[in-house]
Amino acid sequence: MSNRVLIKEVAPRDGLQAQPKHLTVEQRQCLIASLMAAGLPELEIGSFVSPKAVPQMAGTDEIARALPASSCEFSALVPNMKGYELALAAGIKTQAIVVSATEQMNQNNIRMSLDQTFAMAESILTRSREDDVAIHAYLAVAFECPYEGKVDPQVVIAQAEQLMAYQPARLVIADTIGAADPMSVRRLMDSLVARFGSDRIACHFHDTRALAVANVYAALESGVRHFDSAAGGLGGCPFAPGAKGNVATEDVVLLCEQSGLSTGVNIERLLESVALLSEMIGAPQGGRGHYWLSKNWQKLAG
Amino acid sequence: MSNRVLIKEVAPRDGLQAQPKHLTVEQRQCLIASLMAAGLPELEIGSFVSPKAVPQMAGTDEIARALPASSCEFSALVPNMKGYELALAAGIKTQAIVVSATEQMNQNNIRMSLDQTFAMAESILTRSREDDVAIHAYLAVAFECPYEGKVDPQVVIAQAEQLMAYQPARLVIADTIGAADPMSVRRLMDSLVARFGSDRIACHFHDTRALAVANVYAALESGVRHFDSAAGGLGGCPFAPGAKGNVATEDVVLLCEQSGLSTGVNIERLLESVALLSEMIGAPQGGRGHYWLSKNWQKLAG
Repeated sequence: MSNRVLIKEVAPRDGLQAQPKHLTVEQRQCLIASLMAAGLPELEIGSFVSPKAVPQMAGTDEIARALPASSCEFSALVPNMKGYELALAAGIKTQAIVVSATEQMNQNNIRMSLDQTFAMAESILTRSREDDVAIHAYLAVAFECPYEGKVDPQVVIAQAEQLMAYQPARLVIADTIGAADPMSVRRLMDSLVARFGSDRIACHFHDTRALAVANVYAALESGVRHFDSAAGGLGGCPFAPGAKGNVATEDVVLLCEQSGLSTGVNIERLLESVALLSEMIGAPQGGRGHYWLSKNWQKLAG
Repeated sequence: MSNRVLIKEVAPRDGLQAQPKHLTVEQRQCLIASLMAAGLPELEIGSFVSPKAVPQMAGTDEIARALPASSCEFSALVPNMKGYELALAAGIKTQAIVVSATEQMNQNNIRMSLDQTFAMAESILTRSREDDVAIHAYLAVAFECPYEGKVDPQVVIAQAEQLMAYQPARLVIADTIGAADPMSVRRLMDSLVARFGSDRIACHFHDTRALAVANVYAALESGVRHFDSAAGGLGGCPFAPGAKGNVATEDVVLLCEQSGLSTGVNIERLLESVALLSEMIGAPQGGRGHYWLSKNWQKLAG
């Protein structure tokens, strides 16, 4: 198995989208530049959603059009074909689409049935091949749904097969509410890697229950080498320390580098991004390992 | 593999021994009673060391003599034969002894050579069979030593074999400085479980780098079912939130119960123990999952 782990940084999208503090386009550009300087190989810059629905993501179009030439792979989330077209027009050639694994999550989240969401995914994926756009297809609430409870892994595997038939560049298994445990992660990811190989499989964990690092490790053992994460663990409630959001990028880097896997991330610069985020949000951000890392990052970099 | 995980609660010893705030004998008895009420199956009540060297543990003798009859297995740490005899005289029939895996750790920690420490261990283990005392033999700094750096797993395996030849009730592999990564844990524990089975093997992790829960999970996958932990993650610096000590008991319980393994611990009562500790120490204690657990413990208990 490869020693290289590829991190897709999602703080500018999944991290910021639920923050009560709305950052300006300029601040978000500053954050993106900082994360690029930290050597993150992939970066989700925002989403092409209605600014009425998600004002935090207003101006993603402007950010997309002003992106510098870079070896960093920029991507954006799109909710539907309209978003796909807007993102494409703004030059975004890697796009994320989301299908939830349960009927109720689709209904409550985007007011579409499961079948309608899969039909939407199929049409975007078919269209993307004409436009040479790479699609990251997210399977959300793949472990537990807030409305339907635990999700049957066999259902997820069947849905993964359905999505993979449309040939996304990547299938991302998402623990949207942070309810997965590492044993379930290992079993599911073993099955998916056995079916599809590890090149096109990724995981997206939230750290709600402080199990995200263990879940990343479990997926690493299954051979997964692509992970989403957010600098500072952004995405939780900024006023409740410990109410964590996405798994923190610095925790994933710490886990990987400590385990002899390479992320290519510059930890010192990454901690600068976290400090910048804290300043912009107005509340301290940081992963579970922030205290140790802030004092000892040289030990890992060495 | 068994679905039952046995936790040895070490807050009253490894948690308290380095606290700047020294608890009274009465406070420590109160803590022990609270942890017993939480259903912890094993409890390390203190250590029989010189009160000049470790004033936090003064009065362990008094605590030992006043222990109630209980299904909880009480134990204490002893540094040498004199400690062994004091503990035995106080009625402690399960005792922990420590051997560090490196020469420098033994020299700097207890001013004995590696050979002298192993000879001490052998003499206590030989004696314990006459007295029907169960010994938990700790192999400290089993992954990394603060003086000698990374420890060769082959050295640890050879030392484990040496210790097991003296027939301890349990061999405890300790990541004393919290520097282990889950991949190393898995490899080492696989080897040890293959050699000795899992019944007499335990792990003791510190959460310095926020990897302890992942390390516990890795050891669980190797078949290990005995773990040390401290309520509230006690053992770090109480004035630096995030400077964690032992892996928190509530994090181990969260991991296990979430993964379908049973600990027998009453989470509501355990959180009361953590609250009691916070009050006694004068600073908030709590594991990585404390925020979620404090609001959602019913979800796990159900």
